[in-house]
Amino acid sequence: MNQERISRQAAFLTESDKLKSILRRTLLTDGTRRENTAEHSWHIILTAMVLREYAAEPVNFERALEMLAVHDLVEIDADDTFAYDAEANRTRADRERRAADRLFGMLPSDLGTKLRALWEEFEAHQTSESRFANAVDRFQPLLQNLATEGGTWRIHHPTREQVLRRMDPVRTALPALWPLVEGAIDQFFTSTGSGQTKP
Amino acid sequence: MNQERISRQAAFLTESDKLKSILRRTLLTDGTRRENTAEHSWHIILTAMVLREYAAEPVNFERALEMLAVHDLVEIDADDTFAYDAEANRTRADRERRAADRLFGMLPSDLGTKLRALWEEFEAHQTSESRFANAVDRFQPLLQNLATEGGTWRIHHPTREQVLRRMDPVRTALPALWPLVEGAIDQFFTSTGSGQTKP
Repeated sequence: MNQERISRQAAFLTESDKLKSILRRTLLTDGTRRENTAEHSWHIILTAMVLREYAAEPVNFERALEMLAVHDLVEIDADDTFAYDAEANRTRADRERRAADRLFGMLPSDLGTKLRALWEEFEAHQTSESRFANAVDRFQPLLQNLATEGGTWRIHHPTREQVLRRMDPVRTALPALWPLVEGAIDQFFTSTGSGQTKP
Repeated sequence: MNQERISRQAAFLTESDKLKSILRRTLLTDGTRRENTAEHSWHIILTAMVLREYAAEPVNFERALEMLAVHDLVEIDADDTFAYDAEANRTRADRERRAADRLFGMLPSDLGTKLRALWEEFEAHQTSESRFANAVDRFQPLLQNLATEGGTWRIHHPTREQVLRRMDPVRTALPALWPLVEGAIDQFFTSTGSGQTKP
């Protein structure tokens, strides 16, 4: 009995290794390659630990860390969906729900239910932990972009308004960091002269 | 004042990105490349979440997760030291201490002290959180090896006794998983006929 439970847990952990092969658009700070979702997930956990003091609301920090660890696991099947790809974002919820069915379904049901609930909580933006986790998940790629001359902004040309909207969870959940975010966006769009909304 | 604090925190997080370029000996389960330390750090956090129920002692789980997130950060300067490389392990403590001075020293001192203490606690194996975290850190590469026909065991030829010693934290801190570990080691060394201690 116990051995079957352990086997399912081990199979899930082995399957999770595939997140290391899912590429995001974000670049490493040295510009040599794109970041994968597993290493991104680690980096936002570290980011949460370092920026925790700026959370606008009380946060159950253990749950926030667990949420960050599983929030992108569905990308193993559903792939990373670039924030500024409107077409791909239309099918994202459906692809990710099917991925969640399969991946969390590999676990013993009590554990699968628990981890899936963390993923759903992250997606719903309804709790302080989710708002904090989403803000951290937006702020880390901004630091990567700052280190790579605009990074994904330079390569994929979102408008200033799109970037500000994308970063909005930082404004509300980590307000002390908003001047840094706004300053970085201002500097990038002023220097590239692409600050206007596309006509 | 606050802006200077935030700048130091952001600089530390940007520097931490370099952990994504530190390669371990462990292979990804598809065998295509070596695992880096950042994605390994995420994977052991997920492993801790999934195997938590088997901890032999009560564990402050939030602290255990934070410990896992920072336990290998020093490798940014000190590089990964392969478990079975006796020569490199002689200089490891010194290299890692200097790395800790520099990296945790980038942070505001209260935060740097806190994160450094987590790393030192992990290394000392003296608390239940450290014993649990070390066991998880040994168990995840075993799963990777199981998925890659022995992985690092096949490539680097440690003896059966070296592997059993390396895995011993699992026996004491996650005893329910020991039959799986022993079984995997038995099967590998029996099938390769390299189960004997080198003469």
